[in-house]
Amino acid sequence: MSLREEIEMLCNNAKVASQKMALATTEKKNELLLRMAALLEEETESLVEANREDLDAAEENGISKTMLDRLAISPTRILGICQALRSLVELEDPIGKGESWTRPSGLEISRVRVPLGVVAMIYEARPNVTVDSAALCLKTGNAVILRGGKEAIHTNMAIVRVIKRALDDCGLDPHAVELVESTERESAQILMTMRGFIDVLIPRGGKGLIRSVVENATVPVIETGAGNCHLYVDDSAEVEMALSVAVNAKCSRPSVCNAIETILVHAGVAAKFLPKLAEEMGKYAVELRGCPRTRVLIPTANEATEEDFFTEYNDYIVAIKVVDTLADAISHINKYSTGHSEAIITTNDANAERFLSEVNSAAVYVNASTRFTDGGEFGFGAEIGISTQKLHVRGPMGLSALTTEKYLVRGNGAIR
Amino acid sequence: MSLREEIEMLCNNAKVASQKMALATTEKKNELLLRMAALLEEETESLVEANREDLDAAEENGISKTMLDRLAISPTRILGICQALRSLVELEDPIGKGESWTRPSGLEISRVRVPLGVVAMIYEARPNVTVDSAALCLKTGNAVILRGGKEAIHTNMAIVRVIKRALDDCGLDPHAVELVESTERESAQILMTMRGFIDVLIPRGGKGLIRSVVENATVPVIETGAGNCHLYVDDSAEVEMALSVAVNAKCSRPSVCNAIETILVHAGVAAKFLPKLAEEMGKYAVELRGCPRTRVLIPTANEATEEDFFTEYNDYIVAIKVVDTLADAISHINKYSTGHSEAIITTNDANAERFLSEVNSAAVYVNASTRFTDGGEFGFGAEIGISTQKLHVRGPMGLSALTTEKYLVRGNGAIR
Repeated sequence: MSLREEIEMLCNNAKVASQKMALATTEKKNELLLRMAALLEEETESLVEANREDLDAAEENGISKTMLDRLAISPTRILGICQALRSLVELEDPIGKGESWTRPSGLEISRVRVPLGVVAMIYEARPNVTVDSAALCLKTGNAVILRGGKEAIHTNMAIVRVIKRALDDCGLDPHAVELVESTERESAQILMTMRGFIDVLIPRGGKGLIRSVVENATVPVIETGAGNCHLYVDDSAEVEMALSVAVNAKCSRPSVCNAIETILVHAGVAAKFLPKLAEEMGKYAVELRGCPRTRVLIPTANEATEEDFFTEYNDYIVAIKVVDTLADAISHINKYSTGHSEAIITTNDANAERFLSEVNSAAVYVNASTRFTDGGEFGFGAEIGISTQKLHVRGPMGLSALTTEKYLVRGNGAIR
Repeated sequence: MSLREEIEMLCNNAKVASQKMALATTEKKNELLLRMAALLEEETESLVEANREDLDAAEENGISKTMLDRLAISPTRILGICQALRSLVELEDPIGKGESWTRPSGLEISRVRVPLGVVAMIYEARPNVTVDSAALCLKTGNAVILRGGKEAIHTNMAIVRVIKRALDDCGLDPHAVELVESTERESAQILMTMRGFIDVLIPRGGKGLIRSVVENATVPVIETGAGNCHLYVDDSAEVEMALSVAVNAKCSRPSVCNAIETILVHAGVAAKFLPKLAEEMGKYAVELRGCPRTRVLIPTANEATEEDFFTEYNDYIVAIKVVDTLADAISHINKYSTGHSEAIITTNDANAERFLSEVNSAAVYVNASTRFTDGGEFGFGAEIGISTQKLHVRGPMGLSALTTEKYLVRGNGAIR
């Protein structure tokens, strides 16, 4: 069987299973989540063992310490994963929710939430994404096809084996979760073109992965995660607040998508703000890359090129630019941003409102850190990722992002 | 300037204009719609003249009478278009609608409806689509790039000239409506790949157009219109109702996407139903193509091939298949349908509910004709098309399909 045939078979199995999953009651789906948690705990030893194989291979390949840490699952981490599964039980099931109305034709129309069907995920290293993604898709009555990274393949196989057992134990179709075991580039390419089988493809990973999906996918896609976020310090800003938010937004966790990459500073506050910013950022050894005017005020800053302003560093590096007006700040953001999260620090209400309405990103903040863009922080309980596209869902994606709607129409022989 | 550069410039102009349109008030947008109506009426003569050029060229190229009729605009039709514009004023503007909540972090989060930004439309013959699409996009604060068919180019140019004047008269940016004047295949291809400029592309047209967009577009797409719709006659059906709905769903307007293409008949009612169906369909000279069991009961029917069941005839042709169970009917539909609209005729409530929940299409009917799948019939007031995809919007698309959401977050120096 060729790789294409293999993946097609897998997709077909998932499609058939999705039709059964769509009919599962909320109770049944919650029973499944609890069973998954119980089995994952029970299988801790074998999961850690499988993970050991991946870690050994990764070490042999000279993978970085950070990557090794992302790849590792310990009994404590498994416990954390299982707690997340149990708390997912508490979340409201969006399936079946809706509204009804009657038309002059006599037709009674209902619009109800239904599962998307088959969700495919292509993602990188972290094995907890395997459990998370499967759980969120199953809770919303979808089937899911997982295609994780090469580094985590043994761990992912062990996890999926356990989830399939949980499905089986609950009288559900084990094909509702499928893992593409080939981690060749080609397997991802084939998956992206499985029209008629896959209802949505969600890539979770770096820029390269997202770009490859956008360029090659023929199935519908939700783009996630690319975050070139900005902080704009207005001339009316409280400098202490601006410093505190800047440090938080850059340094609390530079590797995540809601961290800032560029700070724009109004010329009227630059002389007061920038030297202090340099001092604060110095404490975290952040590399500063500035425009010419910034470098006059911070002589130690390196030069920021045009490319810098397009870059999501995901690191202890920040670009800085002095702007003359709020309008210039907004234009800069709307040109260079990936449309994720942006913030203004200001005491001027008119400027705040203008920033909120003219900045074209999923989440726009006044006097707060961009680090809050997160399903948990927004109160959604769970998060599948953060959408940077405008279609279907924007910003943090809760359970309803994995659903669509359907019209049910009842008549008594009505013709038009 | 190359065609690509030309289209890029046009896209860039539309993008800049979209940022201004997004800020237009509901009153301003309604003023614009009324101004468009007034100017289109005023310009009736020049519009009809431009249309004459297209009609002459079409006649020379030996285009069919039906196509000529679709292409033609008369003073009466212009009046109809203007009435539609005026009634659009009455519809509620979704922009700015939303909800707010406060989080334990102290953040106040609002989720509000905002325009998508730049909407691109690629469509075929009918020039009324030019006005419709532009009006719906402008009412929702979007800019729009129109790429109509070659046959209507003079009419479209004249219409867009009038709309640009209306924009200008209202103090809005005339670039909020742009027409791609090149009707070469290449111009559509280029438009589909304008990432960073186009927020959504909506193709309106035949199967070939939709397929080309799905395969080549790198911008987000809403698929519309393909309708391989089914009617299933249950063994418990009232035969008179089944006949009436079948005739309405097939013959009232065979060229539209919500007309049926295949009738599935339960074996238990086939002998009673099919001969009568043949008689009724005969009145409209409908060609019947049946499975072997159908052809025993309707000896005049032609043979239906596998390909027939995949075909949207858009014509006085219908495929017929006898099935043994409701489950077989549902499987057939979920395999061959384009996910548009399907109906069951039954007096059995359990069968009705099973059909509603297991058929995987945008609109599912019990005892009614599929011809009701329509924005007007559903009560949405306006319709941009009928989505057959599951992402973003499904079924008839009202104004809100042209919007997305955005999170506005207000804090007081909150850090995470």
